[in-house]
Amino acid sequence: MKLTISRNELNEAVQQTVKAVSSRTTIPILSGIKIDADAQGITLTASDTDISIQSYIPAETADKHIATVTQSGSVVLPAKFFAEIVRKLPHEEVNIDVGERFQTVIHSGSSEIQIVGMDPEEFPVLPVLEEDKVFSVPGELLKSMIRQTVFAVTTNESTPVLTGVLWNLQDGVLKFLATDRHRLATSSIKIDADPDIRFGNVVISGKTLNELSKIIPEQNTLIDIVVADSQVLFKLGNVLFFTRMLDGTFPDTTKIIPTSYKTELVLHTRALGDALDRAYLLSREEKTNIVRLTTTENGNVEILSSSSELGRMQEQLEAVELTGEPLRIAFNSKYMLDVLKVTDSEQLFIGFTGPMSPIIIKPRDHDNALHLILPYRTTN
Amino acid sequence: MKLTISRNELNEAVQQTVKAVSSRTTIPILSGIKIDADAQGITLTASDTDISIQSYIPAETADKHIATVTQSGSVVLPAKFFAEIVRKLPHEEVNIDVGERFQTVIHSGSSEIQIVGMDPEEFPVLPVLEEDKVFSVPGELLKSMIRQTVFAVTTNESTPVLTGVLWNLQDGVLKFLATDRHRLATSSIKIDADPDIRFGNVVISGKTLNELSKIIPEQNTLIDIVVADSQVLFKLGNVLFFTRMLDGTFPDTTKIIPTSYKTELVLHTRALGDALDRAYLLSREEKTNIVRLTTTENGNVEILSSSSELGRMQEQLEAVELTGEPLRIAFNSKYMLDVLKVTDSEQLFIGFTGPMSPIIIKPRDHDNALHLILPYRTTN
Repeated sequence: MKLTISRNELNEAVQQTVKAVSSRTTIPILSGIKIDADAQGITLTASDTDISIQSYIPAETADKHIATVTQSGSVVLPAKFFAEIVRKLPHEEVNIDVGERFQTVIHSGSSEIQIVGMDPEEFPVLPVLEEDKVFSVPGELLKSMIRQTVFAVTTNESTPVLTGVLWNLQDGVLKFLATDRHRLATSSIKIDADPDIRFGNVVISGKTLNELSKIIPEQNTLIDIVVADSQVLFKLGNVLFFTRMLDGTFPDTTKIIPTSYKTELVLHTRALGDALDRAYLLSREEKTNIVRLTTTENGNVEILSSSSELGRMQEQLEAVELTGEPLRIAFNSKYMLDVLKVTDSEQLFIGFTGPMSPIIIKPRDHDNALHLILPYRTTN
Repeated sequence: MKLTISRNELNEAVQQTVKAVSSRTTIPILSGIKIDADAQGITLTASDTDISIQSYIPAETADKHIATVTQSGSVVLPAKFFAEIVRKLPHEEVNIDVGERFQTVIHSGSSEIQIVGMDPEEFPVLPVLEEDKVFSVPGELLKSMIRQTVFAVTTNESTPVLTGVLWNLQDGVLKFLATDRHRLATSSIKIDADPDIRFGNVVISGKTLNELSKIIPEQNTLIDIVVADSQVLFKLGNVLFFTRMLDGTFPDTTKIIPTSYKTELVLHTRALGDALDRAYLLSREEKTNIVRLTTTENGNVEILSSSSELGRMQEQLEAVELTGEPLRIAFNSKYMLDVLKVTDSEQLFIGFTGPMSPIIIKPRDHDNALHLILPYRTTN
């Protein structure tokens, strides 16, 4: 393999690809980035077996010459070092020359770097997916759906399936759902997909979705998503992002979401967030993060929290609307703050069916998100 | 104690003062901020016994009414919680009311916070310093002198005096010096001080100087510095910063700094930094961070580094000037990069007296800084 390439394009592709490399891998070849070059362009591949990222650099684009490959070939280079050195190369032009036993020499300006390369034959081959279930989602929307749900996955590895977000496509509605058994987050959106395409119980690791989020480009382009047997592929322009689905059956959560409420409350999102921010400072001292919310006789609500060591706080909060039965409920303020952080609506609806029943939080501007948190069972 | 105060002024003073509070203190009262209020203003004090910070908020300034104290008094409030809650108070006006047994109630907007206060009598009294050794240094200059030297203190607690920076004032020249026995950093500057004021062996902890640096205001105002028997006081406007000196005698380093050189080299600071950045990526894999520098026959230098696992790098670097004997020397690239990071001169001078002797680095634009690093003793 012998090629000349523009540093900036190489750097951009390498930085994308290196995200798939785990720093804790025990398989030596997976600490590397595979480079395949032919006259058409250069392909970079990295994998940690859970996710794989492949970036393609065309030799030519419509308006730019990027690379010249004078000899096709492949090599695997140590990913972390290669990514750092490419970022710091002194000259806009980079020569890469792979010699015997994959000894690789990089020239850029007056720098000459010799890298011990690895055999590309050892690198795992990426799966070829059946492309019969393909649909597209705008990048911004996908990012937003991930953000709305991913915080609610469990970090407890004893129920692996709950470390993921459940994806479901039915009648053209794509729905994400995550739960850690104390709270639940959903986001759903009508997409422009063939109504024949449908799937359920596709579960993708929360960690993977966070990684995916980071490489979704700022420009709100369409992302093609291929759902195959045990893998999902995201096509982001010249970048392919493969992930394995999580095994296991996601629990049925439909029955725990109430459909009618005994107390209905509408609040200003910002005002509730600010009050809970203050209440949290006391509640976190007790580890439980418990905050109490009480309806008042004048149709507003009061937020209370206390810490035996520090003191207590109470605060009136103006309700935009309050209907139904008077209520006194306790919940984990951290869970509510997590919901508020992803709520993009100026006002939010909170539905209660009693002090021991799930609390439902929905944005007031749209129906795309629904969050549930279980109250804290307390006797006073 | 009973007072009304502007949130922003209170917040600013609290955030400055809380920096003196250690999160690991075993003395309960030192987890607090002491508040003293009288008709003239409010004083906040915090201390971790090594450093103490006192901020003063006048009730009135020339153009603004800040606080009204209706009842003088004192209280100690839990520092971390108080600092966070003050930052998050909902209203521009804040009422603080201390009742029986130091129970403190804070009102702001519709928030009411009750805090368990502590007895101010338990709080240590700050020392009153003899102000016979007082001089002034512009804030920016003090920051720069700290930055030039503090990175070279040792982190090894077995020689406590070397965790500090040595201050020395003689004939109107203020000099800072730090060393960890492998390298040495100095910064000196002529200041506008009474020539009768002189001191040596004043050693201030590097950690403390970093904290001080953070609260030196952006505006380049003069900072009054009081050097007393075992304490140094920095007066930064309404903020007083007290620190204890480190005990012990700083080693005499004058003899290890060579005054003539066998090889003299002038390089572009930026070019050397970039080359060492690349070389470091390989050298750090070997833990020792060793990089080699060799003079070449065409009057330039070559930088070399290698890692048995990753590979090797070599790079020509154009010398602005090179005189004296040919040289081949090895040194810790991290040490050299630390020096380059604080070098504000476009070109730098490097003086060598042989491959086993200290390397001297000086900015070329001025004489205010001198850095020394010991070479790595190697046989090849």
